[in-house]
Amino acid sequence: MVPEPLPKQLAELSELLAQMCTHAAGSLQQATSALLECRERLAARVIGREAELAALCARVEEVATDALLFHSPVAGDLRAVVSTIRSAGDIDRMGRLALHVAQTAQRRSPQPVLPPEVREDFAEMGRLAVQLALKAADVARSHNVLQAVELDADDDAMDALHRHMFEVLMDQGWPHGVGAAVDITLLARYYERFADHAVAVARETVYAVTGQEPDAIPI
Amino acid sequence: MVPEPLPKQLAELSELLAQMCTHAAGSLQQATSALLECRERLAARVIGREAELAALCARVEEVATDALLFHSPVAGDLRAVVSTIRSAGDIDRMGRLALHVAQTAQRRSPQPVLPPEVREDFAEMGRLAVQLALKAADVARSHNVLQAVELDADDDAMDALHRHMFEVLMDQGWPHGVGAAVDITLLARYYERFADHAVAVARETVYAVTGQEPDAIPI
Repeated sequence: MVPEPLPKQLAELSELLAQMCTHAAGSLQQATSALLECRERLAARVIGREAELAALCARVEEVATDALLFHSPVAGDLRAVVSTIRSAGDIDRMGRLALHVAQTAQRRSPQPVLPPEVREDFAEMGRLAVQLALKAADVARSHNVLQAVELDADDDAMDALHRHMFEVLMDQGWPHGVGAAVDITLLARYYERFADHAVAVARETVYAVTGQEPDAIPI
Repeated sequence: MVPEPLPKQLAELSELLAQMCTHAAGSLQQATSALLECRERLAARVIGREAELAALCARVEEVATDALLFHSPVAGDLRAVVSTIRSAGDIDRMGRLALHVAQTAQRRSPQPVLPPEVREDFAEMGRLAVQLALKAADVARSHNVLQAVELDADDDAMDALHRHMFEVLMDQGWPHGVGAAVDITLLARYYERFADHAVAVARETVYAVTGQEPDAIPI
């Protein structure tokens, strides 16, 4: 078998990472709808699509290993391959977190998981997290360092929502009991971690392009 | 600069991974003591040691990149380098989870975080998680596939404890309020994730040695 030339493999890796991010974004969007609207079958559909992301992840591994094996890349190309391997791990985890959201919606069905007063916050966490994943997909394709740095600011909004959620739960007047609080604590953590991994993917791209961590780049 | 020979680099990578696992185990052990015994200064010590693990992780990255750059490893050697990069990510995360435990202990100090009825469960989760990290360190050094498969069974014990914790919280008679339940939910998740990452490190080693996922190995 003749291996593909390195530039073609690197382009395929970028495209695969972007597809993985888009897949994870789609899963979290559907899982969030399932959660907000108690749609058990939609939750099941998210769970049923898990293997697709695993297949993309396996393909990243295959192409990255081939690139290392046949082309012995150096400098920026080597960084690109190594950062792709790490990013695929992050996006795989994003898919699992979307799955956890779907599983929570499914487990409580047909009961709603979310009391009315936190529904809008979770809708917003869902929007932010999906947006971060789609931006990470863009960054994986474009290798745009400026756009990658933007994700950090978006993530601050997620962290603020995450903190707000705990204030709501810790309020002395929380009327929905411990069971709901446990579900909400874990769900809020899933969204926050999903966003963190999307930011990590963008940071990996910055590192691959520049050889520096985003914090070290003067903008 | 003359690069080290590949076998020496691979040995250094194994040793670094083992040191990282041992570091994460030590941090979680101390963080658990800080949590159980409300020792604020011990929690601060765990938090203060974070940079040590980051330095080990950076060194893994450096040696792995050098190995790829100067030796273009193939087959098992290439798998070993790639799996080392991934494992370092897992162990870095273990360190952060230990840090979260320490931060929780510190945040509530001098109040105890844990009500009496869950203290023994957390002591046991701490013991199991530390043991898993130390076994992962052994596997990183020994590349012993049989020992790596053992970790899956240990992780089942952790999962059982994790489930039990939710049963305790969901009990109608839980008398400690929502705040304590939120803390305990997150803490239990930290221990469970720490254990999962230790298992992932061992699985990566199996993959590096055999080229197969542990599930595919007949034992």
